[in-house]
Amino acid sequence: MNTFTLHPTLAADCHALGQWRDVRLLLHKDAHVRWFIVVPETDSAEWHELPASLRDQLLTASSVLGVMLKNDDGCDKVNIAAIGNLVPQFHFHVIGRWKNDPYWPGVVWGRSVAGCEYTDEDVRKIAAQALSSLSRGSA
Amino acid sequence: MNTFTLHPTLAADCHALGQWRDVRLLLHKDAHVRWFIVVPETDSAEWHELPASLRDQLLTASSVLGVMLKNDDGCDKVNIAAIGNLVPQFHFHVIGRWKNDPYWPGVVWGRSVAGCEYTDEDVRKIAAQALSSLSRGSA
Repeated sequence: MNTFTLHPTLAADCHALGQWRDVRLLLHKDAHVRWFIVVPETDSAEWHELPASLRDQLLTASSVLGVMLKNDDGCDKVNIAAIGNLVPQFHFHVIGRWKNDPYWPGVVWGRSVAGCEYTDEDVRKIAAQALSSLSRGSA
Repeated sequence: MNTFTLHPTLAADCHALGQWRDVRLLLHKDAHVRWFIVVPETDSAEWHELPASLRDQLLTASSVLGVMLKNDDGCDKVNIAAIGNLVPQFHFHVIGRWKNDPYWPGVVWGRSVAGCEYTDEDVRKIAAQALSSLSRGSA
């Protein structure tokens, strides 16, 4: 039985795109940037505490999403991070950045503003693209 | 012949602690937090573009430093990231955070301020601690 529960802040801030192996794939609601959040199903709070199998999945997922952001979405840079100062549940940011996004060249954390939202159709398309990339990339 | 040259911004912002395998270990001069920067000797700009051997070294280094920050330095959280929007040379942040540091719970990027500097003796001690941890942790 899977008893993992997503932290309520992540659930509120993000669209749930789906599941890939033992990680949840989220999309931050701020559509100014292409902001994925990967959440391994674990109680570990730190990068260096993740079980090896989950760390491998996280590495694969972050690489596949990074390639997709650069090649398919024309992003100029990929920002990755595990911070967790506010939300203790381990979550890994994989963020596609464009040089004309409103936060460039700064970071997104603490600066995200409202005003650009995904439609339901956008979310469906991005979920299909990302989960398909993960499925292919991990073959 | 090693022709790798550290980006001038990294050289200016950081103390050079030393070399471990194929990565340079730096310490950001802002002593409000314990801010390591790991620089693999590569021209790759993105996490997902790193050669496998360098990525493995980076993973080992970040884990060893993370354990050290939590266990030896009493940090409350470790923040890790690869951003590179301003400095294109790939570099990986491993930052020990305390709940009473001046940036908590926010991120450090774009918020670092002057006012807290390491002495030469501090830098020597931290270099010895970190390089010793890397040497032991990678055995």
